[in-house]
Amino acid sequence: MTDPWANAAVAARVTVGADLHLELRGPRLRAGLMDALREAVRTGRLAPGTRLPSSRSLAADLGVARNTVADAYAELVAEGWLTARQGSGTRVARRAAPRARPRQAAPAVAASARVRPRRGALHNLHPGVPDLGSFPRGEWLKAARRALTAAPHDAFGYGDPRGRIELRTVLADYLARARGVHAHPDRIVICSGFVHGLMLMAKVLRARRVRDVAVESYGLDVHWNILADAGLRTTALPLDEQGTRTDALGAQGAVLITPAHQFPLGGALPPERRAAAVDWARRAGALILEDDYDGEFRYDRQPVGALQGLDPERVVYFGTASKSLTPGLRLAWMVLPEALAGEVAEAKGPVDWASGALDQLTLAEFVSSGAYDRHVRSMRLRYRRRRDQLVAALAERAPHIEVSGIAAGLHAVLELPPGTERSVVQAAAWQGLALQGLDGFRNPHVQRTRDGLVVGYGTPTDSAWAGALDALCRVLP
Amino acid sequence: MTDPWANAAVAARVTVGADLHLELRGPRLRAGLMDALREAVRTGRLAPGTRLPSSRSLAADLGVARNTVADAYAELVAEGWLTARQGSGTRVARRAAPRARPRQAAPAVAASARVRPRRGALHNLHPGVPDLGSFPRGEWLKAARRALTAAPHDAFGYGDPRGRIELRTVLADYLARARGVHAHPDRIVICSGFVHGLMLMAKVLRARRVRDVAVESYGLDVHWNILADAGLRTTALPLDEQGTRTDALGAQGAVLITPAHQFPLGGALPPERRAAAVDWARRAGALILEDDYDGEFRYDRQPVGALQGLDPERVVYFGTASKSLTPGLRLAWMVLPEALAGEVAEAKGPVDWASGALDQLTLAEFVSSGAYDRHVRSMRLRYRRRRDQLVAALAERAPHIEVSGIAAGLHAVLELPPGTERSVVQAAAWQGLALQGLDGFRNPHVQRTRDGLVVGYGTPTDSAWAGALDALCRVLP
Repeated sequence: MTDPWANAAVAARVTVGADLHLELRGPRLRAGLMDALREAVRTGRLAPGTRLPSSRSLAADLGVARNTVADAYAELVAEGWLTARQGSGTRVARRAAPRARPRQAAPAVAASARVRPRRGALHNLHPGVPDLGSFPRGEWLKAARRALTAAPHDAFGYGDPRGRIELRTVLADYLARARGVHAHPDRIVICSGFVHGLMLMAKVLRARRVRDVAVESYGLDVHWNILADAGLRTTALPLDEQGTRTDALGAQGAVLITPAHQFPLGGALPPERRAAAVDWARRAGALILEDDYDGEFRYDRQPVGALQGLDPERVVYFGTASKSLTPGLRLAWMVLPEALAGEVAEAKGPVDWASGALDQLTLAEFVSSGAYDRHVRSMRLRYRRRRDQLVAALAERAPHIEVSGIAAGLHAVLELPPGTERSVVQAAAWQGLALQGLDGFRNPHVQRTRDGLVVGYGTPTDSAWAGALDALCRVLP
Repeated sequence: MTDPWANAAVAARVTVGADLHLELRGPRLRAGLMDALREAVRTGRLAPGTRLPSSRSLAADLGVARNTVADAYAELVAEGWLTARQGSGTRVARRAAPRARPRQAAPAVAASARVRPRRGALHNLHPGVPDLGSFPRGEWLKAARRALTAAPHDAFGYGDPRGRIELRTVLADYLARARGVHAHPDRIVICSGFVHGLMLMAKVLRARRVRDVAVESYGLDVHWNILADAGLRTTALPLDEQGTRTDALGAQGAVLITPAHQFPLGGALPPERRAAAVDWARRAGALILEDDYDGEFRYDRQPVGALQGLDPERVVYFGTASKSLTPGLRLAWMVLPEALAGEVAEAKGPVDWASGALDQLTLAEFVSSGAYDRHVRSMRLRYRRRRDQLVAALAERAPHIEVSGIAAGLHAVLELPPGTERSVVQAAAWQGLALQGLDGFRNPHVQRTRDGLVVGYGTPTDSAWAGALDALCRVLP
């Protein structure tokens, strides 16, 4: 089936102080509206202090549901782009303009990355960003010095599109050891992030005449959009208490899944579902795209090994330093079936997207020296403590709220009473607490069946954590 | 007009030991054949030692001119992928496979970057790569330490798609000072190289309903292909002794030019031609895409200022660290008209291509500390010496060869007697000297009118330079 929203475009010329043209595209109207408003603020078309139309009237102008606009306003308030005061309505925040606070202007990535970075909200519990204050600067510099001293001259030239051989060699060893990945340096391609890798893969799938890709019921719309932009149709797999129904895979040419730690629900795909996926891929001659975004962080038992180990010729493994170290490095990696490695390198090479050689060489040194393992271990302890504090606080102050997906990763899912999700997110937004509801991660093809929050506990700094936790408990029903 | 080659695809199944399927795409058959052969060698489909069919029989199989195949073979011999011995024909080189020499396997970028890096050729005089041995490792590390110590936590997060504000701020100042660019940090977008920036721009141009983009008679096919891939038609502007005929601009929506130092011919666009371009852009509401790839390196007078200064609202300025520092950094920058900055950031952001934050912060520190200026000055002296040695050697040993394009940059153009270019390039290849003829840079729409060589004198290390120069003089007619 095709995505009914894929080509939907809602446009309206609404008078907001100046004449402002808003055009909404893509599968998610709310996200589209938020992007359009952020862009209008960032470019100054919406001046600080400008009063926005009421959600009712803008919804009418755009011909969308009022809640779509109300939700977008609430999120943008939480992100600090807008302010809302009883009586004075919703206005463009004074501090939202990039000239005023350049370091905070990140609208596009904000809309695309795994999480929207805080935007002046008092507290941010969005999932997907690690504790940035913990980046091991000193250790990294030491590794950079060793790497730069040892690098051959050609390290500074136009490199192998697959990335530096030093890093691919070290990763092949690390991934085998830490994630059970069957890897060979020749089959690894370094990319600038999971999204970059997925774009390359989508290009290759289309070139191979693949038309349909299965995705999970809950995930990130930016990933679905990348597949759609490449001309691939996405179909959402059904979900049950065991997790994604990989046994329901059919005529698709590939499936994108998060087996070690479903994003955002947090479960691990059970062994029989893993086997079902691999059997299907062999039977159908299809590919499994395994997004192993935070596989290193599992608390209550050994990390769940990568699915890729089951059949390296049928699984494309995606790993990243964005959660284990920092997204600022823009370093991720793909481990590819032998038949695909060349095609992906071709797709990457001609458009010249190699990541910086120095960071690649430094990461190679950082991993081979053992600093990476030490860092992951200490972060695991830190995140686990956060997780325990979250669970304890909820048990004490909101015992009726069920928490799930806590065995791994940097976020948890809080079940909410039916029909309360939107109001909780909005109430939090008014109080400067940035929360994301489950609904924002629901595939547009999938029925809404539950209310909940996806709470990222990795993001706040240590000093802000207690306050964020308290603010969370206060807004829970 | 449309590119007659744009959709041309020649395919053949030729038996080369194993059954090898070659498919040629894109505007340049020879480049396509070379890519296909490199890929076949890299992936092992063509094993080391395999004897290739004669250029005559492969040309017949592919239905292309025999010279197309002969040239491709010669280039690949020069690049070290193939070997050619009188009697034993052309074979896959023993050392070409990545497993054997992983650091040398860069086929895809090789085909796309400004130059194909050496591939085991004894000497490489291809244009476009700076002296990699001169990268200032110590100074860079000092800058990295200062930058990393001073960086705020959020430097490690998902950043502004435009790039780090610290770097954009420093570049705005540097570009105004060194290149006469009218720049504001909000209008600068950091990208991973010129090609990345051009891809973003092509996307934005298409979104703005632009259909035709004018290019120069000589340039790089990878750039023309990027425009074509984005759905833009390219038309080549005529050329005369003054340079590119910008007065011939017509219905196109944009023009891609290298005003400070035409690539590869080497001339500077005269003032009246610059004015003609700007007048046209204003009249037609069109854009000028200014590729200022090596603007810092001018020897006989002050650098020619950027065209962008004439009309910042009509010119998109592209600069890069690939020539001034090293391509390994993957750092370049665009300075955009105010109306475009937001659109380009949107085009870049959602696909998450930010360059690494640490390299951006380090470059900002490197520039603001004056280290960048010092490095450019010392490299300018070094390249100028090379240029002088080249001119002197030719004057002595090949006085009949005219040299042009020597006032700036890292390469010169040597005029050859009509009809001799191909044989000179091939003769050089047999002797392990990698040379590129003018014809490889000719736009497919343009008649071949001259024979010549584009000699890059920046690439060889100091120790290899004398030998390369001697080898060059020996192959000249």
